This record gives sequence, C-alpha cells and structure tokens, in this order.
Amino acid sequence: MPLTPAVLREFERILGRARVLTAPEELTVYAYDATWAHQRPDAVLTFQETAEVAQVLAVCHRERIAVVPRGGATGLAGGAVPSAGSISLNLAPMNKILEINPRDMYAVVQPGVVNADLQRAVEPHGLFYPPDPASWLMSTIGGNVAMNAGGPRALKYGVTAAYVMALEVVLASGEVMRTGSRTLKNVTGYNLTQLIVGSEGTLGVITEITLRLLRKPPAQGTVMAVFDQLEAAAECVVELLQAGVTPLTTELMDRTTLQVAQAAFPHLALPIEAAAVLLIDVDGDEAAVEREAARVAEVASRTGARAVQRAADAAEAATLWAGRRAVGGALTRLKPNYYAEDIVVPRSAIPEMARRVRQIAEQYNLLLPLFGHIGDGNLHPTIMCDRRNADEMRRVEAAAEAIVESAIELGGVLTGEHGVGLLKRDYLPLDLNPVEIASMRRIKQALDPHNILNPGKLFPPE
Amino acid sequence: MPLTPAVLREFERILGRARVLTAPEELTVYAYDATWAHQRPDAVLTFQETAEVAQVLAVCHRERIAVVPRGGATGLAGGAVPSAGSISLNLAPMNKILEINPRDMYAVVQPGVVNADLQRAVEPHGLFYPPDPASWLMSTIGGNVAMNAGGPRALKYGVTAAYVMALEVVLASGEVMRTGSRTLKNVTGYNLTQLIVGSEGTLGVITEITLRLLRKPPAQGTVMAVFDQLEAAAECVVELLQAGVTPLTTELMDRTTLQVAQAAFPHLALPIEAAAVLLIDVDGDEAAVEREAARVAEVASRTGARAVQRAADAAEAATLWAGRRAVGGALTRLKPNYYAEDIVVPRSAIPEMARRVRQIAEQYNLLLPLFGHIGDGNLHPTIMCDRRNADEMRRVEAAAEAIVESAIELGGVLTGEHGVGLLKRDYLPLDLNPVEIASMRRIKQALDPHNILNPGKLFPPE
Repeated sequence: MPLTPAVLREFERILGRARVLTAPEELTVYAYDATWAHQRPDAVLTFQETAEVAQVLAVCHRERIAVVPRGGATGLAGGAVPSAGSISLNLAPMNKILEINPRDMYAVVQPGVVNADLQRAVEPHGLFYPPDPASWLMSTIGGNVAMNAGGPRALKYGVTAAYVMALEVVLASGEVMRTGSRTLKNVTGYNLTQLIVGSEGTLGVITEITLRLLRKPPAQGTVMAVFDQLEAAAECVVELLQAGVTPLTTELMDRTTLQVAQAAFPHLALPIEAAAVLLIDVDGDEAAVEREAARVAEVASRTGARAVQRAADAAEAATLWAGRRAVGGALTRLKPNYYAEDIVVPRSAIPEMARRVRQIAEQYNLLLPLFGHIGDGNLHPTIMCDRRNADEMRRVEAAAEAIVESAIELGGVLTGEHGVGLLKRDYLPLDLNPVEIASMRRIKQALDPHNILNPGKLFPPE
Repeated sequence: MPLTPAVLREFERILGRARVLTAPEELTVYAYDATWAHQRPDAVLTFQETAEVAQVLAVCHRERIAVVPRGGATGLAGGAVPSAGSISLNLAPMNKILEINPRDMYAVVQPGVVNADLQRAVEPHGLFYPPDPASWLMSTIGGNVAMNAGGPRALKYGVTAAYVMALEVVLASGEVMRTGSRTLKNVTGYNLTQLIVGSEGTLGVITEITLRLLRKPPAQGTVMAVFDQLEAAAECVVELLQAGVTPLTTELMDRTTLQVAQAAFPHLALPIEAAAVLLIDVDGDEAAVEREAARVAEVASRTGARAVQRAADAAEAATLWAGRRAVGGALTRLKPNYYAEDIVVPRSAIPEMARRVRQIAEQYNLLLPLFGHIGDGNLHPTIMCDRRNADEMRRVEAAAEAIVESAIELGGVLTGEHGVGLLKRDYLPLDLNPVEIASMRRIKQALDPHNILNPGKLFPPE
C-alpha cells in the first residue's frame, strides 16, 4: 500500500521528525547496496531502539507497507536494496555493544555494530570473534546474521551461524520475539535462532544478537605456495584437510586474478605467470603453528608447488596477503561492473569446477577471475562486465547460469555466504527441490502473512 | 480419527501384511521409551524405504490419523511414546549406511542406523563421528537428529546439529522434502535442515541423513581429579576453558552419584567421601594430548583437587571411567523410577546451580544425584523416586519445577540434549517467551495443518 501523509505523521510521532526522511536526494543514498541493483525507497526510517522498530512494524503490518531492513549495505545479493514502494529501515545507528562477558565468553550487540568494531572490542579480553567477511570494516553484525556471512576464516571456524546463540527479533506484526539462550547447549523447542539466521530480513527484523566468542589463539603463521596447475593447488588443499590439518584460511587466486591485481597495483610483484597462488594461514599456540606451517609447506611441495614461502613475521605475512587484499579494488578498475558468483562444491569437486569455470569463460568470451576460500569449497568466479553493453550482459547471464548449473551438477550449491537476495533468486529452483521451496513459502506466510518483510527477496517471483 | 479396517488394508497394501501390527501383545512392545510414559499405539507400521513412509503419511494426512515416529526408543523425554489413538512408525529397520565418503568426509545414512554402528563403520577410514549420547549402543541416528542428541564429547565437538548437513524428510502431506547439501557452506534459502533437527518428529519424518565427519584424532588421554568441594570442581572446569584448553569431555559425579554407583557395584572402589569427581579426557595428536593433560592436572591441583590421577594407557582410562559408566545402571537398582533433569546454565553459574540442587534435594527430602557434562553447563540432576508413592511424586514434581526455575533464573534453559517431548512440555513457557512459542505453533500449523505428526509433544496443551 502507498505511504500516506497520515502514516508518515505516525512514524514521526514514534521516531521524531529528524529520523523520517522523504526528500528524494536523501532517499537516493539508501537506494543501493554493493551490487548494481537500485531502487529508491518511499521513506527512510532511522532507529535507535527495539521499541521503535516494534511500533513502526505494527503500523506497517496494519497498513500493509513493505519494509526493507538495512545495515552497512555492503551486501552482494541485493538483499538491502528497497523494493518499489517500500520503506528502508536504517538500523546502522543501533550500534551499541551491550555486553562483553569474558567468563561465559559471549557478547550482546545491537544490529548496527560494525564487524571490525566488535572484533577490536573483544580482543583486550583475550577473546576472538572469528567471522570475517571481506566487508568487515563496514558491514554490520545484523547484516552478517541476516545473510549468514562467511569469510576466509570460515574454513576453520565456521560461518556467522555458528556464533549466534540468541536473537531478539521484531516480527512482522510488531511483536518482539526472543530466541535462543546464553548457554552452549539448548534443545528447548524449534531452533528459531537458526531459522532467522540467513533469512535475509524476510522473517523478522533483528534488533539484538548474542554471539559466542572464542579464546584468541596466541599465534598465527602464513605460507604462500605458487602452482603451475590450478588442479595441483586444489589437490594441495584437499590433501591437507585429509591429513587432519585445518588451516585458518586457504585463499586461492587464479592466473586471471593475479594478472588483474598486478595490472591495477604494479608494486605488488605477483607471480603472474603462475596458474594459481594459495595463501594458507594457520593459527593456534606457537608449537601448533610451527608444526602446521611445516606440514603445509611439505604438502604444497609434494602436490607440485613450484615455490613455497613462509612468512617470517607479521609484516612479511601482510606482504604476502597484499595481493589477495588488492583483488576487490583491482576488479573495480578493470570494468565498471561485476557479477560475483558464490558457489560451493564438495572439496573433491574443486579441480573439476575450476576447469569448468575456465571453459565457461572461454565459451562466453568473458573476463572471469576465480578466487575464493577454496578449502571449504566456496569459490567466487567473478564475471567482469559493463552493464551498458547489452551483448556482453547477455553472455554474462548465460555464463552465470552455466556456472551455477555446473556447481549443482557437481553436488554443490548456489550460494555459500553472499545469500540469494534479488540477484540470485531466479536460480533458487536450480538448487532447491520444489517441496523445500514450498515449505519455505509456507513458513514465510505463517510468520509474515501480509508479506511486508523484504518482499521480492530470496524467493523467485511466483 | 480412529483407524478403520479399510485404512488398515491400505497400509497392508503399501507395506505387506507382516509389517502392519495390530495385536495387543505386539502393540505393547511399542508403548514405551526410556521414560515412565507409556501408551499403546493403535497399530505399528514397519518401514524399509522412504517411498513407503511417503505413501503411509499421505493416507494419514487424508484420514487425519496421528503418527509417532520411533527409532531406538531410548529417549528420555517421552518423544517416541505413542499418543492415544496414534500409529507408531517403526523406522529402526531402515538401518542402511548408504555411503561413507572419506574424501569429502561425510556419511549418508538411513534413520535406523544405530549411533555405535556408524561410529564403528567410519573408523577404518580414519574418520570420526563425534556425537556420543549415553544411549549410543542402542539409539538411532534418526532419533539423535530428531532430538538433537548431545553427549559428553559435545563440549569439544558440539551436539548432533553440528554434524547434520542434509536431510530427506517426509512431510505430513506425504511429500518428500530434501534440505541442505553435501557442501560445508550453504546459505541458499531458509535453514530448514536446522529447523527439522530437534523438532522431535513434529514437523516431518526423517528418512535420510547426511552427516559431516571429522578426521579421527590420533591420541586421547584421561585425567581423574577428586575434590572436597563441588564448587572447586566447577571452578576447575571454568578455569580450564578460560585458559583455552577445551577438553574432549569433563564429566562430573557428585557425592550422591559416587555413593549410588559404589553401592550398586562394590568392586569399583570410588572415592565416596569426596564431594565431586571430575573425569577429563583430552584428544588430539600425541604432543597436544601430553600438553593438555599436563595442563589439566596443573589446573585441577591449583583449584583444590585433593588427588589427581592420569591414566597411563587405555586400560587404566577405562578403569577410571568405569564409575561414570556405572551410574545409569546403578540408578535403576536404587529406586524403580527416576526423573532426569537436563538443564543447562552458563558456565559461570555452574557452582551456584550445584548449590541450589543440593538445597532442593534437602528441602524436598529426595535422593538427587547430580552428574553431567558440566563443561558445557549441561547438568543432569536426577530425581530418584517410586511412581507408586504419591507423596514422593508430589515432592518430585515440585523439585523438578524448582530446578528448572533455578536454571532459568541463572540464565539457563530447560533442556540441553534430552528434548521436551511429553515430560517437559509443561515447562516450555518457563523457558521460552510467548511470542516464540506462538511462532513455533504457527510454523507447526503451516507444515502440518492437521496436526498428525507426533501430536501432544513439545508444545504444552493449549
């Protein structure tokens, strides 16, 4: 339903005038996330506390007004991009860390807390929050939870879901639901905490999060291995994991990625003639790091690395990582747009998936750097493109679908950490069986009968 | 609706006559689980494959006949006990291990596979399935998943939920739903896998399970520490975890537990004058086990253990563990019945919770041994009783409620690994907020509109 002046006044009574934006130039700021999707909302509401979210949702429920929750807007699936006629819910200012409990090892935060701020805040307590999406300097915990964000360290420590102990969620009706607990075990009733994690703002608005923390491992080590064959790099990772070594991260850059990063940042001196580079970090106590780094070097050599380098200290590790960190920036210099795939395949299928990505790049004549966390099977073939080039965009679309189809054929899935959102919703039926999609729709309908929560996301249009 | 001869004939056409039981003496066998709850079903149907489950549920959906899935029937919450007028679905014969994949480290099993059989089957591949409920020699993976079973090793390795990658589930309608994947990361759509895990047979019948496996750690060590103060034992565990040592298990036995076990099995030579005994296992490679076992001994001494003993080998470890393993059997010799609590509190609240359990035992004059996994905060105060003694049973009920109320007051939860089922359903509103319970009911209603799946379990009567 359209936004009436009467409803706007109701919002202003709840939030105050300054926190209800309707001027076009203000709305434009909230039309985007990190994808090419964009749509101006009809209004932007800014929140400071749960009670305000509850009151606003009760009004929207009554008036059938669509709402789109928004954190750092760094999403790669279009999840926070407003739908036509919707209101953007700006939760970023709800950014208080409410509690850090070192004895029971958890933190309670509001949804707008930036991932990096939480990481920094727990460190003085000797604690560690593992999830590290690439967007960690800007993305919010609320967004991380809504999308179930991953990151390089997910290989060893798991994705965001593994750290969410409890949630406060405002339902479509405006009712405030609390799920989960601050205990390590809990089987009381259905696991609604994990149902909300990754539900992309379609089941409720997350207003408070309790996160499990770990003890910070005292030491870390970095090994870089250079391969003449992409398959050998993949095999190296599989053999390491088989051998019982679980590195902190195993980041892959293929030749195209190396060349793109080198071209953008000439000071990097990357091995651009190599087929692949692996960056493998290990962590633990000093002895474990020594042992595992030696093991990594040994397995890399045995599986065909032409060069293996272990960082002597943190500064050298940062140098080795500079190439990987440059990839994001490098891509944006090369072409105006990109479509980021986020497929996951079983580990044993990584070499075959890498081959198919190369084939698809050639077949559709596209620049398609392949990089990602590889050890957990999560790959980001990233299709470089220019949205103004209609012919290229047709090829991008065909290649994107071919990559997803290949991944699923190899026992994989559509998305490992970016989510479905707007950009991948049409592929959902390729991945999930119809009975599962129908069950998801029934749950959505049960909890949000008027479909006001982030409509048009996650599900393909009916 | 009651079971008519016509419907029975339909079941016989699907399953064959031999797999449809209706004789009272046969039905009685299926009236029980490991609790005192009991109710004869109207029929018992035995399954060999998913298609049969699907056909039978479609009939039950149409005829509004209640069904109660059943695995090893070792449950401690009454989850598999038939409700009046229901049919028992015997899934135990669906006990095939369909695949063990050492390269991608997963197994695919039917629901009737016994936990111990899976553990044994994966070992020759160097693999490890961590969840180890006390019932592991009899309980089935299907039941473990339906109840989200824990066990001592959950402290280090997590509960069953952490290992469930994918499920095949027959919905109330008879439709077959597949959830999840064989990949380590997957954020495609809602996490229905984790919604089904722990849903106690109320949302669907699990017919196939894909489980993540770990590499088997090469070494293990056992330390026994004897304390004169229960609080000191609790403090020992908290300090260990604070220090970054995560043992495989930390099993507590309080004085009452020690005395009960010793009385039943006089050969055990347990330290019955002690306030508490901790059994702490560590695992990993040889070096890590050496280091951690030494650390455990050191922390135990520092926190006040009067005796610390490290097992020299596996045989000695088995001797140290004999007391803990004897507890279940010992309890049944002492009194005809027991009510097993399964509370969890945040770690820091364990000493206070232990004090309150002692107080409650005295207040209600009940024999109340306290034991459990302690490190994860999961305690099993176990109220010994005789169901024929009405006065005692009134005190049991009051004590049970007082224990749950105490746990929740200390930030804890009703159940950590046994589930809610029949025996704990009335306590659900003590633990969960009304909005969460209402959401759970809405989801149940959305997926099982005629309430045929394990009715009367998990939710309190309305």
